Amino acid sequence: MQYNNTNMIVIGGSNANNIDKNLIKLLNAKGANLVHKRFPDGEQYVRIEDSLAGKTVVIVQSLYPNQDSALMELLLILEAVQALKPARVITVVPYLAYARQDKRFLTGEPISVRVVLEALNLYTKDTLITIDIHKPESLKYFKGTSMNIIPVKSIANALRRDINGLEKRDVVVIAPDKGAFRRAELLAKELGDVDYDYLEKFRDRHTGEVIHKLKEVNVRGRIAILVDDIISTGGTIAKAAKMLYDEGAREVIAACSHGLFVDNALNKLAGSKITKVYSTNTVPQPSGVRVVDVSTEIAERIKEVVKS
Amino acid sequence: MQYNNTNMIVIGGSNANNIDKNLIKLLNAKGANLVHKRFPDGEQYVRIEDSLAGKTVVIVQSLYPNQDSALMELLLILEAVQALKPARVITVVPYLAYARQDKRFLTGEPISVRVVLEALNLYTKDTLITIDIHKPESLKYFKGTSMNIIPVKSIANALRRDINGLEKRDVVVIAPDKGAFRRAELLAKELGDVDYDYLEKFRDRHTGEVIHKLKEVNVRGRIAILVDDIISTGGTIAKAAKMLYDEGAREVIAACSHGLFVDNALNKLAGSKITKVYSTNTVPQPSGVRVVDVSTEIAERIKEVVKS
Repeated sequence: MQYNNTNMIVIGGSNANNIDKNLIKLLNAKGANLVHKRFPDGEQYVRIEDSLAGKTVVIVQSLYPNQDSALMELLLILEAVQALKPARVITVVPYLAYARQDKRFLTGEPISVRVVLEALNLYTKDTLITIDIHKPESLKYFKGTSMNIIPVKSIANALRRDINGLEKRDVVVIAPDKGAFRRAELLAKELGDVDYDYLEKFRDRHTGEVIHKLKEVNVRGRIAILVDDIISTGGTIAKAAKMLYDEGAREVIAACSHGLFVDNALNKLAGSKITKVYSTNTVPQPSGVRVVDVSTEIAERIKEVVKS
Repeated sequence: MQYNNTNMIVIGGSNANNIDKNLIKLLNAKGANLVHKRFPDGEQYVRIEDSLAGKTVVIVQSLYPNQDSALMELLLILEAVQALKPARVITVVPYLAYARQDKRFLTGEPISVRVVLEALNLYTKDTLITIDIHKPESLKYFKGTSMNIIPVKSIANALRRDINGLEKRDVVVIAPDKGAFRRAELLAKELGDVDYDYLEKFRDRHTGEVIHKLKEVNVRGRIAILVDDIISTGGTIAKAAKMLYDEGAREVIAACSHGLFVDNALNKLAGSKITKVYSTNTVPQPSGVRVVDVSTEIAERIKEVVKS
């Protein structure tokens, strides 16, 4: 059955990374014309040139790169949109920046993710869709309907080529820390119930060095898929890969939702003998990364939202 | 009488432009230790290392340059500060960015200044002090006590050297448009009730060119002080200066609250034979500009707030 929504209009910000265009196709929606420019002093200007009254508006804006400017652009869009009186607004933020500062680790720190979500909340109390936020509990700061997609379906589809023809016992999914364990579990299930585990951190009592140990699973002779939400400088994943090879893994593949790859991260990953690096397109990807498109999973979620 | 407030603590953001340090001296206050850094991916981190419980906290952060990052930094500081339970918070934003987009000039535009003020309002309902916001009415978006300082006292003090020994009739203050008229009036009064006027814009019916005309005052043989809130590219002021010289002005001086001076603005001003350019220190000033410190006027206002 062909999904059709002539009442839906998609607005892509500067950081939509073509997900807006994919959604227009997948949802048979219309695209809006968004003017975006910078004044000579650096201030941003946006204008939506379409009528939005009574429409279902989907806004797509990722918050990387240039987190602060991307957030300001999104706030300007949201403020402009609400004044145009749409029937509903679905805000898609494929990568939500500042999500790792989700609590006061030290007194005097801000809860940065709260600032991002409460600022968005100023101009929409409707629906927020994001991909694999660092801690889903952070979404409590958005007082509307919020949805977190862990894109394991899309990532599993891409990985299937790599494990095609292998026995189930040849593959294991590993989270580099306990926080990423749930993600590893979901991906392992999606790959046909392969084994999964996470790395525990210990500090060597004599040297003070941090050591990673597998909790239960043995990786000897197996393909280990390291999965995390964000790869930034790649340090954590490179260390984890080294440890997995030391434990006898046949091959280590890295997969993440948000590949930021700053400070020569890809070189670091290659140096740790990781054979393939997967990231979704929530943020722009450099060459060398196998890019997984999350547009379909977002479109499916939007269809559910609109139906409900 | 020496003003003393041992209970006051001043936090300067990256864009405090030394106004925080001046306020510490002027108010006999303490400075707070603010950690500010950027993660490799570009995200900002702040931390306030002092106890603020029960204190009067003054936060200083200008929103130029790097408007969006400066705003985000201020929001992070405000969120961190409120969690430390100060008795009161006085937020000083010497230059408030996005203030010129203060209404929907066209359908589909945002009210950008609303976004800035409502975002600040998320974490403080207390007192906001700003310098010469483009339209004071915009401050209605901040649901707390807001104060706008038009720093004509500081600017007049600086200008007095230039008009020292002149007759009152030798000096006239000119606003480049009707919107800046009130500022010209205040500066003229501060300079000893000299004449003031504004330039009216006409469009030539044949050529379509915009022409500026003095409303009432004659500038022939007089020193004209052009005063505006913001000088950005300098186009408006350069045109106005040319017109004043055409009308026989002896000398044209430019003075503004916020000298952004983008795109070779200072060369443009020099090319229009403006002899001296004054700006306050609400934003960093390049060499060639005569800098007027607004810290004293801010400190006076803070004293009034604290007393009340």
